[in-house]
Amino acid sequence: MAQNIYDNPDFFAAYSQLPRQVHGLDGAPEWPAVQAMLPALTGKRVADLGCGFGWTSRWMRAQGAVSVLGLDLSQNMIARAKADTTDPTIEYLLADLETLELPEAAFELVYSALTFHYVEDFPRLARMMHKALVPGGDLVFTIEHPIFMAAAHPHWMADEDDRKTWPVNRYSVEGERRTDWFAKGVVKYHRTLGTTLNALIDAGFQLRRVKEFAPTREQIERAPELAEELERPMMLLVSARKPERR
Amino acid sequence: MAQNIYDNPDFFAAYSQLPRQVHGLDGAPEWPAVQAMLPALTGKRVADLGCGFGWTSRWMRAQGAVSVLGLDLSQNMIARAKADTTDPTIEYLLADLETLELPEAAFELVYSALTFHYVEDFPRLARMMHKALVPGGDLVFTIEHPIFMAAAHPHWMADEDDRKTWPVNRYSVEGERRTDWFAKGVVKYHRTLGTTLNALIDAGFQLRRVKEFAPTREQIERAPELAEELERPMMLLVSARKPERR
Repeated sequence: MAQNIYDNPDFFAAYSQLPRQVHGLDGAPEWPAVQAMLPALTGKRVADLGCGFGWTSRWMRAQGAVSVLGLDLSQNMIARAKADTTDPTIEYLLADLETLELPEAAFELVYSALTFHYVEDFPRLARMMHKALVPGGDLVFTIEHPIFMAAAHPHWMADEDDRKTWPVNRYSVEGERRTDWFAKGVVKYHRTLGTTLNALIDAGFQLRRVKEFAPTREQIERAPELAEELERPMMLLVSARKPERR
Repeated sequence: MAQNIYDNPDFFAAYSQLPRQVHGLDGAPEWPAVQAMLPALTGKRVADLGCGFGWTSRWMRAQGAVSVLGLDLSQNMIARAKADTTDPTIEYLLADLETLELPEAAFELVYSALTFHYVEDFPRLARMMHKALVPGGDLVFTIEHPIFMAAAHPHWMADEDDRKTWPVNRYSVEGERRTDWFAKGVVKYHRTLGTTLNALIDAGFQLRRVKEFAPTREQIERAPELAEELERPMMLLVSARKPERR
C-alpha cells in the first residue's frame, strides 16, 4: 500500500491551509491551463483519482458531468469531501491507486491532480485507466514534474549571476524520493518524463497534449511570487485519449 | 537563415575530433538506444536531416534502405560526406532546415540526429516532415534535451553533498541560447519538452516513444565517465509516426 501521509494529523492540518485547499481551484495557478485541456463535460461519467477535498469533482458536476466518482487514499480527505458535498451523483470512496480496479468502459473521463507521483506502479495504473475508459474517452492529469522531483536535495540554488536555479541530479535514477513537506519523509516516486509518457503509449493511449506549467504574464502581474515558476517547471500536465475502435 | 557554425574553420577542426566523428556511430553512446527506435529499413526511402559526415546515411543503406537523401547546412559536412561515400543511391545536398521543402509523400523514414535544436521554427519543420512522409511513415530524431539547454550557464555545479548537479533556470523562457562550444556564441533554440512534442502532435504525428538517453550499466563499466549522464539527460530521443489513412 502507498504511504498515506495525508492521514498524518500534523501534515493534514498544514496541508489544509494551502491556498488550493482554502480557495479551491482558484487557488491553483495551473488550473486555467488544466481546464483548457479538459474535454466538454456534459453527459460525461468522470473518475477523479486523488480527489482530495472534492473541489474538482464538484466543479465537474457543475459543468454538466452526469456522475463523478472521487477516490482518495486518505480518510481525512474523503471525510472532508463528503462533508462539503450535497450532490448525490458525486460518490467518494477510499481507494489505493496501487491496487484500484475500476469497472471496464465505465467512464468518459479519468482525471487526476498531483497524485500519480505517489504511485509506484504507474504502468499498472495506466493499463487500468485505459480499461476503465470507453473508446474515445479522455485521460487528463497533472503530476509533479520530474525536473522538480529528481534531485537529492530539491531546493533553489543560485547560479553565478545569483539567478534562481533549480538543481537536477539523479534524473535517470528512477524510484523512491523522500522529501520533507509538512512532514518528514514524504515518499514520492520519480520517473523520467519519457517513462511516464511511454507507460501511457504502451497502455494504448494516444498523447494529445504535454504541457509544463508556466504562469502567464497576467498571473505574474497579479502574484509576482509566481515568476520563479518560469525558471523550472514544477508540474507536468498531460492529456491522452483511448482511441476509438476502428 | 540559421547560423552555420559548422563552416567556421576553427569549430569544424575541433568538431571533427569528437569521438562520434572519428569513430562514427560506435562513438555515440546513445546510438544503441536510437537504433532500437528505428523501424526496419529494408526497402525504405530515407531523409537524413543534418547528415554531417554521412555515417548514419551509409549505415542505413547497409541495413537495406533503397535510397538516402542526406541534407546539411554545412558545406564542410557535405564535402566530407561526399568524399567518404561511394554508394550512388546516397545523395548529399546543402539545405537549411528553416526553409527546406521536401517532395510530398516521398519518404518512409525521416531521421535526424542532434540538429533540430539549431532550428528556430520547429512547427514549420514538423509540418513539412509530416507532408514528406508516406502514411505509416516514421520520424525518428534526437535533440539536445531542454534540461541540458535551458540554463543561462549550462555547466556542472555541486550540491551540498558535492554531487554533480545540473542547473536549470529559464526553462519556460523559450528561444535563443548562445553557448561557447568549440567557438564563441553558438546559437541554439530552447523549447520546453512540451512545446516540441505538441508541435509534432499538431502536425499530425502520433508519438510512439519518448526517451531521455541514459547510459546502460555495461556502457558505464566500459566508459566510467558516462556515469554523469545519469545525473541529467543530455539528449531527447523521439519516435513518431504519420498515421495510415483510415
